[in-house]
Amino acid sequence: MEDCLFCKIIKGEIPSNKVYEDEEILAFNDINPAAPIHILVIPKKHIASLADMKKDDEIIVGKIYGVINKIAKEQGFKENGYRVIVNCGKDAGQEVMHLHFHLLAGEKFGDKIV
Amino acid sequence: MEDCLFCKIIKGEIPSNKVYEDEEILAFNDINPAAPIHILVIPKKHIASLADMKKDDEIIVGKIYGVINKIAKEQGFKENGYRVIVNCGKDAGQEVMHLHFHLLAGEKFGDKIV
Repeated sequence: MEDCLFCKIIKGEIPSNKVYEDEEILAFNDINPAAPIHILVIPKKHIASLADMKKDDEIIVGKIYGVINKIAKEQGFKENGYRVIVNCGKDAGQEVMHLHFHLLAGEKFGDKIV
Repeated sequence: MEDCLFCKIIKGEIPSNKVYEDEEILAFNDINPAAPIHILVIPKKHIASLADMKKDDEIIVGKIYGVINKIAKEQGFKENGYRVIVNCGKDAGQEVMHLHFHLLAGEKFGDKIV
């Protein structure tokens, strides 16, 4: 997708602070972190949002959770804990229309989950 | 798991307000909702947390996102938007040690995602 910010990051046209990369998945630090650790994990395939996922995309979503656990282990926060958030559509405040998983860690998030 | 609250809900030993059920996945309304719509989507297999996921469990996690989209469509909030949150471990405030996906909808959640 020509105008997609995250597709440009995937292609290297816009720089990012990469945390993980394989053929299908990229993870990089959020430039406006909402927690001490705030990583975005995305499929390289352009899927606009959760609502746009097809049946076949379930496989990559599962793999993304595998990558999240890999990052959690490598960065040393797997034991203390982490939160994963996906925003879909305008009510949830999705800002970039390329499916992304927020991985947050490094502090206690408390009970309030919205 | 004998002492697991969600395993008891799966077995019907504790009542729940079911939203969706198939052989592998159950969804039910959260008894203490944090949003107008607050549904918990869980694998029937006992997985204590994201951190306890095995490679093979990636498949069920992908399927859970398919179920989330199915529920979003059926309940009419797929277009307006929804948020999915997974808390893992103590820093994230995970309360029940059975992997669960919070599906939240029905209001604007704003920018703050922690």
